[in-house]
Amino acid sequence: MKIKGKHYRTIWLKDGDPSTVCVIDQRLLPHRLEIVEIRSVADMAAAIKDMTVRGAPLIGVAAAYGMYLAALELSSRTPESSFRELLDDAAEKLLQSRPTAVNLAWAVAEQRAVIAAGGDAAQVIESLRVRAQELLEDDVSKCKNIGEHALRLFRELAARKGSQPLNILTHCNAGWLATVDWGTATAGIYLASEAGIPIHVWVDETRPRNQGASLTAWELGSHGVSYTLISDNAGGHLMQDGRVDLVIVGTDRVARNGDVANKIGTYLKALAAHANNVPFFVAAPSSSIDWQISSGRQIPIEERDSDEVKYVWGLSDRQEVQRVLISPEDAAAANFGFDVTPAHLITKLITERGVCDASEDGLLSLFPEKLVGSKL
Amino acid sequence: MKIKGKHYRTIWLKDGDPSTVCVIDQRLLPHRLEIVEIRSVADMAAAIKDMTVRGAPLIGVAAAYGMYLAALELSSRTPESSFRELLDDAAEKLLQSRPTAVNLAWAVAEQRAVIAAGGDAAQVIESLRVRAQELLEDDVSKCKNIGEHALRLFRELAARKGSQPLNILTHCNAGWLATVDWGTATAGIYLASEAGIPIHVWVDETRPRNQGASLTAWELGSHGVSYTLISDNAGGHLMQDGRVDLVIVGTDRVARNGDVANKIGTYLKALAAHANNVPFFVAAPSSSIDWQISSGRQIPIEERDSDEVKYVWGLSDRQEVQRVLISPEDAAAANFGFDVTPAHLITKLITERGVCDASEDGLLSLFPEKLVGSKL
Repeated sequence: MKIKGKHYRTIWLKDGDPSTVCVIDQRLLPHRLEIVEIRSVADMAAAIKDMTVRGAPLIGVAAAYGMYLAALELSSRTPESSFRELLDDAAEKLLQSRPTAVNLAWAVAEQRAVIAAGGDAAQVIESLRVRAQELLEDDVSKCKNIGEHALRLFRELAARKGSQPLNILTHCNAGWLATVDWGTATAGIYLASEAGIPIHVWVDETRPRNQGASLTAWELGSHGVSYTLISDNAGGHLMQDGRVDLVIVGTDRVARNGDVANKIGTYLKALAAHANNVPFFVAAPSSSIDWQISSGRQIPIEERDSDEVKYVWGLSDRQEVQRVLISPEDAAAANFGFDVTPAHLITKLITERGVCDASEDGLLSLFPEKLVGSKL
Repeated sequence: MKIKGKHYRTIWLKDGDPSTVCVIDQRLLPHRLEIVEIRSVADMAAAIKDMTVRGAPLIGVAAAYGMYLAALELSSRTPESSFRELLDDAAEKLLQSRPTAVNLAWAVAEQRAVIAAGGDAAQVIESLRVRAQELLEDDVSKCKNIGEHALRLFRELAARKGSQPLNILTHCNAGWLATVDWGTATAGIYLASEAGIPIHVWVDETRPRNQGASLTAWELGSHGVSYTLISDNAGGHLMQDGRVDLVIVGTDRVARNGDVANKIGTYLKALAAHANNVPFFVAAPSSSIDWQISSGRQIPIEERDSDEVKYVWGLSDRQEVQRVLISPEDAAAANFGFDVTPAHLITKLITERGVCDASEDGLLSLFPEKLVGSKL
């Protein structure tokens, strides 16, 4: 998408220097835009671990490029005989950078398959680069497909509004910064904006990590989409007041019955949407569908460091990025990362293959190849 | 209530110096406990305006003492002939300090009635002091009564838990810091704690002003009540997970039909409580019941400064109380102060006279004197 008129992706090979991977340092947003140049697998693993890059799809692509960088480094300083073994060590290091990220494991496995396919070091390097590029382009096209399916739903709702803007509420950052481009929940928003449909986005700040305030607000504003930042508490009131036409969020995991795990607080917005007849959509790339679990109750909810609740990071009046303590220093605090929105509160799931009901039958209608053996 | 073992109220006449009113400076909590000594009506008006004291009941009592301080000052430096006229000017200054606070207007009217009752300056001063003290004690006993009615409800729910703690979720600060002592929503919590009922409180941080993180967490911790601070987003997940036994909140205004206006985000918790069969109680002193409005739809929702959403105040690692920007500097933001929870989501209202259904019939059963003429 665009940052003040210039097109960007979240990750790319440096122009004229294919041994350097460039990424946007997301830790500094929304306060500073800085591009980090990464030239080794160790630096890529560190960038994933310290959240310079974040968002499941982007982490996967970053890891794929990490394997390519590893091969480049190793070919220049190790004998051909130990090349594959050392590449395997690099893969392990990448896997440990964010142990729970499924896209990371998947991308590393993809690159291991490339390595296993054979060839000399030069051939392996080229194959890893090509595969990383394929994964990148695949992510872009999946997101864009989700956006096109969302756009059709948005058009229908916008038609009822006449010339009034379509008011869309979103939670957290399922935006282009979490992917390579377009985003999942935001793809339809960007396409609607480019299609000239008048839209306005209510952006939940998304405590405790404030990804809405820092990332979604920044990316929408940078691209030129009209938005208003609100506290997470405000969405219910806005829906009661008729000021939200639809909600769209991303997801971390979809169960086979259509239950959806997403950033903590999503469930509260789904309840409010249901109570006020506001359509509630979940943008769900197929990579987020976990066919192995029959309901959201089987999704474990990560508990994170309580300091994320007690301290808030931001830019001080001295222009320093720092944290402030908002509670008693000795406060006990709990930090649940996700919640589960039951399928019955979800109007539609939007995948790269199309739109479906949030149910096993709905999902299978789009992914019939998963109908192997009996249903769960 | 207690602060580290020592008993406090939020406002009192200085021991041995009845011309000085002491208050806790609530702007510095939870980081520092400082007592401010107030010796003039101008300083009291400033303390109300700058939120050194806040919370509708406390503001009322503070204003009553402000009128007493005004009379003290004026008697020493103005002729008896202009005493009443200048007292009236003082009343106007107090009224302008927080123009929308009904308790403030009510307390000032009470003191104007005292002045109108006659007597010389010395008699008026003494009558104003006595009336302020009565309003203070009246607030304490109303809160304690609410607490005793809540305690009965808590005991019933605790009985089902055996020796497991009763998990109570609260939003914002309807605590003793908002009143003179006990609080409204917290009164039952303190009484349950003193009665030895094992309890644990989930404290919503309550963005954007974080009254939960800064005030409720501090007062519960200082009194020795077990609590855990959570982001506002977490309550739905906790209720799904069976980890909340009841919700209790305060209110800014109750409509005649039982609809309740309270801090923004209350409605989302009420929806989650209803969906998960968790009792949802509202502590509603009679002063918050607005018999003139028939439904919550008639309650105007205050929009506050958007900087409260964009900036978060807290204690820096340098131990300075300061703000940090969490969004793009040019972000558009909206800041709704309250939302309305419809009566059908409220299990019971708890007033100083007892417990009732959230409905006109329920309210009239406790306040039959309001059944003048036909129902609205």
